[in-house]
Amino acid sequence: MTDRLILTLAILGGTGNEGTGLAYRWAKAGYHVIIGSRSSKKAKTAASEVNKRLARDSVEGMRNADAARACDIAILSVPYAGHKETLESLKQELAGKLLIDVVVPLNSEDITSLKVPPAGSAAQEAQQVLGEATSVTSAFHAISHTHLHRDGPIPSDVLVCGDSDAAKEQTLQLVAAAGMVGWDAGGLANAIVAEGLAAALLNINKRHKIRSAGIRVTGEQAPT
Amino acid sequence: MTDRLILTLAILGGTGNEGTGLAYRWAKAGYHVIIGSRSSKKAKTAASEVNKRLARDSVEGMRNADAARACDIAILSVPYAGHKETLESLKQELAGKLLIDVVVPLNSEDITSLKVPPAGSAAQEAQQVLGEATSVTSAFHAISHTHLHRDGPIPSDVLVCGDSDAAKEQTLQLVAAAGMVGWDAGGLANAIVAEGLAAALLNINKRHKIRSAGIRVTGEQAPT
Repeated sequence: MTDRLILTLAILGGTGNEGTGLAYRWAKAGYHVIIGSRSSKKAKTAASEVNKRLARDSVEGMRNADAARACDIAILSVPYAGHKETLESLKQELAGKLLIDVVVPLNSEDITSLKVPPAGSAAQEAQQVLGEATSVTSAFHAISHTHLHRDGPIPSDVLVCGDSDAAKEQTLQLVAAAGMVGWDAGGLANAIVAEGLAAALLNINKRHKIRSAGIRVTGEQAPT
Repeated sequence: MTDRLILTLAILGGTGNEGTGLAYRWAKAGYHVIIGSRSSKKAKTAASEVNKRLARDSVEGMRNADAARACDIAILSVPYAGHKETLESLKQELAGKLLIDVVVPLNSEDITSLKVPPAGSAAQEAQQVLGEATSVTSAFHAISHTHLHRDGPIPSDVLVCGDSDAAKEQTLQLVAAAGMVGWDAGGLANAIVAEGLAAALLNINKRHKIRSAGIRVTGEQAPT
């Protein structure tokens, strides 16, 4: 995707708690990070807040289209209501790149309930809109922003789905760089599981009176 | 659902490893368990194998329709290919009861890949077929039969979905009786997450060279 030594990541729609938390962790890990937003001003404000915490200027803020153009890898973090429209407007900028879709398609009237998109998942919708020129993976849905904004390892694993093994490998590297354990959970046909887990965990928070619910994958070493 | 002291559970299509594993654990916990099958002979053979391990005659085997008629709570454990047809044939027997759907809708050509049913999930399909007379919950999808057939606690949690709180409460009791930790993961709209997790975990087994992959829910105690 690039032969530069430092990859540039653009977090599109990244001014919320989730986006700035990922920006903080990746900037700390040495990536060049851009926070994108529909508003250049909001993007710059969010970036400068992250830079203040980092005590250095590693994060930039710019409009989504400029961020998408400037990056090697884009991370899409908009509310589901703006998912398709945002992708359609950035199709050209994202061609030839990896898009990591972190969007969770929730029922707008009840955010503990999943609303499955016609394409099967948000990530499959992204792949449909962007076409073959862009590799889409699905990850980082069920991570509490409280954890992202703290330092140290995060007690919650990340399921990664995608139809390209190389794109999944790159995504798993970014999972590790952000201090989490990632797992290859299959093709985009399984993306609704990674996305829907966020809805399930919000429900678990509410019903079991815990907070920042996440998952750990368990298993036994296979015989060699 | 019943005022008898010992509940009768029928595991429909329960002659496989998953069904007999659940039968073993519930019989050990004091429930009266029936293993159902299309073939009365196969059901009786599976039941007698479980009884041998229990060193007592706690499990019966009978045809699915007889098992569904005799039970208080039915657990549906058929391959997805027979899901709808089995439910249609048992609609009358299941009226007024709780059906726990453990069926995972997999792509028959690639079992690490989810194939989402038109209704949104197997459990939503079950609810559509059975109508309001039967309460449907979704649970026990991602549990390794290796773990079920061992004694002791199982290092994998169970997500429970359903639209009736009472039915979910009953299901969570059966999760605990089988030695697992259960979580209320929301309404049937979230059932595809519980079901699809099985496909994701099969993929994780394969790609990460582990076996019996499962999940644990993590979280922090909410402030009181």
